[in-house]
Amino acid sequence: MVVIDILRASTAICTAFKNGALEIIPLAGIEETKKYRPLGYLIAGERDGIVIDGADFGNSPFNFTEENVKGKKIVITTTNGTQTIAKARVSGTVALGAFSNISVLTEWLANLNKNVVLFCAGWKNKFNLEDSVFAGALAGRLIAKGFATNCDSTAAAIDLWHAAEPDILAYMEKAAHRHRLKRLGLDDVLEYCFTNDTANVIPFLKGECFVDVLKK
Amino acid sequence: MVVIDILRASTAICTAFKNGALEIIPLAGIEETKKYRPLGYLIAGERDGIVIDGADFGNSPFNFTEENVKGKKIVITTTNGTQTIAKARVSGTVALGAFSNISVLTEWLANLNKNVVLFCAGWKNKFNLEDSVFAGALAGRLIAKGFATNCDSTAAAIDLWHAAEPDILAYMEKAAHRHRLKRLGLDDVLEYCFTNDTANVIPFLKGECFVDVLKK
Repeated sequence: MVVIDILRASTAICTAFKNGALEIIPLAGIEETKKYRPLGYLIAGERDGIVIDGADFGNSPFNFTEENVKGKKIVITTTNGTQTIAKARVSGTVALGAFSNISVLTEWLANLNKNVVLFCAGWKNKFNLEDSVFAGALAGRLIAKGFATNCDSTAAAIDLWHAAEPDILAYMEKAAHRHRLKRLGLDDVLEYCFTNDTANVIPFLKGECFVDVLKK
Repeated sequence: MVVIDILRASTAICTAFKNGALEIIPLAGIEETKKYRPLGYLIAGERDGIVIDGADFGNSPFNFTEENVKGKKIVITTTNGTQTIAKARVSGTVALGAFSNISVLTEWLANLNKNVVLFCAGWKNKFNLEDSVFAGALAGRLIAKGFATNCDSTAAAIDLWHAAEPDILAYMEKAAHRHRLKRLGLDDVLEYCFTNDTANVIPFLKGECFVDVLKK
């Protein structure tokens, strides 16, 4: 199962691994993060885009710089992404997908050659455009690799990707969360979040924490 | 709230009113239909496309001919549509939307000038293409009448409608339910279900039953 939260959890976690984070524990609740502080973990956390009390930073990918995260262990809790990861755990195999790692993820999934579920985090249990558009982009690449689908929502996501692809940033002007981030002054990440292949990593859930499965 | 179940409940109910049905009671459960038989109601019912035991017919619009329904009262239960209507009741105002009545419905909603929720029945609590594409067509017409939206799923539905509009029947080849109906030999209704304005009626829930709100 590929969990998708483009704005911003899956993009942020890809960035963290690219910049040398050792492991990242996704937590659904804020309270749970506190016990990791004495263990030397960095704490990344937000709700509705706002950094939570006691966190080192929120979930902007720009926080996860090499200076901040290299060689570090991190716990993260976000509005939608980490909730979705908590639900996805039951599937046994959870990877994170973002435009940041779309090419290496496609190759990895093609080599695994198993059924793939694309699980869009959305916004508070509702559909959102940015995750569905990415799901369409990834599904299209997987179909080009020989995967097949008989699912209306996948067909729709691919059509949305076709509508968005010519100018993804212009397309995202109609996305509600893009405006939510703008109101909070957090929309500086948009271009980065919709850029392909900035991080050749695959965050993969091993036990309770993500590791980069591509790292030797 | 506009309930949408293009294949086939909302299309069938529009057809029934066009052909002179007096009232139509939507029921979520099969068992409930039985008490209406002694009261002189026709019973229309299906599950997964198959006519239920004891029903006069299923929910193909082609069953609701003038010969069958003129001057009649009907109860109907379907796989998705009547379940969705049962959930929609809480909103207080429920109308049915289909390509069959898209123009009169648009005019009526524009004149009401209230907030509108488009509630797609989908297939067993999942997204489907045909209802979302219709929602996009209707939303586009309402926006042209001055309505506004800030909802990602409405934006997506409109884009899906744009993808489908040039050749709706070819587009529907990728819809799972279209293939489900084909396997059952029930896909004769497709062209009719995607034809605009075959029935100048608005099924509107009054108490427990639909009436045609345009009928004087």
